[in-house]
Amino acid sequence: MDESFSTPCVVIDLAVVEANIRRFQAYADAHGLAVRPHIKTHKIPAIAERQLAAGAIGLTCQKIAEAEAMIDASPAIRDVFITYDIVGADKLARLRALAGRVRLSVVADGPEVIAGLAGAFADAPQPLTVLVECDTGARRCGVGSPERARDLALAIAGAPGLTFGGLMTYPPAGGGAAVQAFLAEAARLIDAAGLPVAVVSSGGSPDMFRAHEVAVVTEHRPGTYVYNDRSLVERGVCGWDDCALTVHATVVSVPDASRAIVDAGSKILTSDLFGLTGHGHVLGRPDLRIDQLSEEHGRIVADGPLGLAVGDRLRIVPNHACVVSNMVDAVHVLGAPGGTAVWPVVARGRMT
Amino acid sequence: MDESFSTPCVVIDLAVVEANIRRFQAYADAHGLAVRPHIKTHKIPAIAERQLAAGAIGLTCQKIAEAEAMIDASPAIRDVFITYDIVGADKLARLRALAGRVRLSVVADGPEVIAGLAGAFADAPQPLTVLVECDTGARRCGVGSPERARDLALAIAGAPGLTFGGLMTYPPAGGGAAVQAFLAEAARLIDAAGLPVAVVSSGGSPDMFRAHEVAVVTEHRPGTYVYNDRSLVERGVCGWDDCALTVHATVVSVPDASRAIVDAGSKILTSDLFGLTGHGHVLGRPDLRIDQLSEEHGRIVADGPLGLAVGDRLRIVPNHACVVSNMVDAVHVLGAPGGTAVWPVVARGRMT
Repeated sequence: MDESFSTPCVVIDLAVVEANIRRFQAYADAHGLAVRPHIKTHKIPAIAERQLAAGAIGLTCQKIAEAEAMIDASPAIRDVFITYDIVGADKLARLRALAGRVRLSVVADGPEVIAGLAGAFADAPQPLTVLVECDTGARRCGVGSPERARDLALAIAGAPGLTFGGLMTYPPAGGGAAVQAFLAEAARLIDAAGLPVAVVSSGGSPDMFRAHEVAVVTEHRPGTYVYNDRSLVERGVCGWDDCALTVHATVVSVPDASRAIVDAGSKILTSDLFGLTGHGHVLGRPDLRIDQLSEEHGRIVADGPLGLAVGDRLRIVPNHACVVSNMVDAVHVLGAPGGTAVWPVVARGRMT
Repeated sequence: MDESFSTPCVVIDLAVVEANIRRFQAYADAHGLAVRPHIKTHKIPAIAERQLAAGAIGLTCQKIAEAEAMIDASPAIRDVFITYDIVGADKLARLRALAGRVRLSVVADGPEVIAGLAGAFADAPQPLTVLVECDTGARRCGVGSPERARDLALAIAGAPGLTFGGLMTYPPAGGGAAVQAFLAEAARLIDAAGLPVAVVSSGGSPDMFRAHEVAVVTEHRPGTYVYNDRSLVERGVCGWDDCALTVHATVVSVPDASRAIVDAGSKILTSDLFGLTGHGHVLGRPDLRIDQLSEEHGRIVADGPLGLAVGDRLRIVPNHACVVSNMVDAVHVLGAPGGTAVWPVVARGRMT
């Protein structure tokens, strides 16, 4: 373990990143699926470039500000799908500006969103590609029925400045059959209405190696897969050795035999539980539990002896990698070209 | 409500900030308590300057990097208490450098920490003031008994380069009597050993207006009080009008009558629950509940009609203000000198 990084900090093993990218790309290639990685997990242009070089057809961003930051930083980024309802005059103006720079697509799940997009793009030189977001069980955004998906597809196709691009969903974990039923019926209805469904886009890392089971899907948008995390290990999707992101921490106190305190708290590990107990996995010490976080302290307990001393350094795989990336301005990258490097998390905190 | 801010964003009402600062300072003055605000809540030099101008004797930072950022930004900051065990050669060197710039004090709760500090300050021009951190029930850092506090006080007093400064605790909410018992006995033992206990420092906002009930305490380190938040309102410590920090959000989707989706998710509200149900309070709409967050989406539900439409803007008081500050690079400040302004969150993300 590298002792030179001041803790707490986020450390990325680039060899593991590259293996994770290759593994999912190979799976997708074998099943005829396009890959459109979600940058939310890493927010780093140099990693996006590796995803594209491996075969990804483009990127996914959740917010315009993420897309702006990534596109500003890398000329390799030429195709971005923003999987978010764009609402409000300021954002529509920025979206229009971005559409002049890269191949851009967005989603809509209601007539107000379509009307806003149409207003902004009615006189654009190129139409904006808009996919209909479908709620296939996650109960977040998205139309709730295939019929509604068809109605919105027709509304998009009939709106000035817009072109209908297909269907998009963020599926619930384990929802494969219901997702297929919804999307296949929506595609059938839209096709019957005379519109081609060019793309059916799904996402998420928990079921990523089962993406082909939802036969109607044409592209997948994995995010976490690039780093992996405790939530994916606990679901059996990968192993600890596949986790490219770790938080390095130092034991700063061992007040008594019952607990040790590390310098990593919710300010770096976040409070995301993701249905898990505890706040991360200490590599090499599966007997330890991080049972409580405050902002700058993590408390470690064990059923047996702690075996920890002040100054000991630990590597923690967080529950949820994406949100940890967003806590730091930069990450330490092991195995970067030229050796260990510090890479800024370029799209960190970009929320608008 | 100001419609000009691109959402989601953090908005600070400076008049409320200033009233919150005055209210606690007046309370502390009336009870003979020194005020040493914790900057973790705001991380903004101009707010620290207001705390100092109102009568605070100095500031509290949790990490050296926070102190560095604040001191670099404001010449008004001349006295900083870092309430953290400083461990490791890199941090000790930075602490030593910082001690040459301001009046600095730190804590220790074990012999390893004291040895590290003594090694770094043995040949310093001025001794470093070190307080003993006491665990008065929060079960985080701190010595577990008054006798142990005395032993460490003597160790500090006997170490080269260090001077014993007193006792420090981060008390458990509602722990007043036990906190008093521990600290008073520790002070008695240390006094009996011939050492003066110059400072007894306590902290936290939940019990801030009962700080005087722990009679042995000489100074208080409130953090959240400057903004307040839902956790303090729900505890009865303040009202919604006393909440200076709100997250502004826009409704981006109303998929059906059961839910609306806003553009504020865990990336700005964080996943901190603080023992509460839901993820914040929508001002003016106590009937609404934010029942689920993903990174960029907040889901709003209600028992009755939602009464929300795409494009509606909401102001949300977060569960925990401090962690929300840390998510954004800048905040919009209402009532700043010269009008609404954007202030950088200077010490955001400073963890080492």
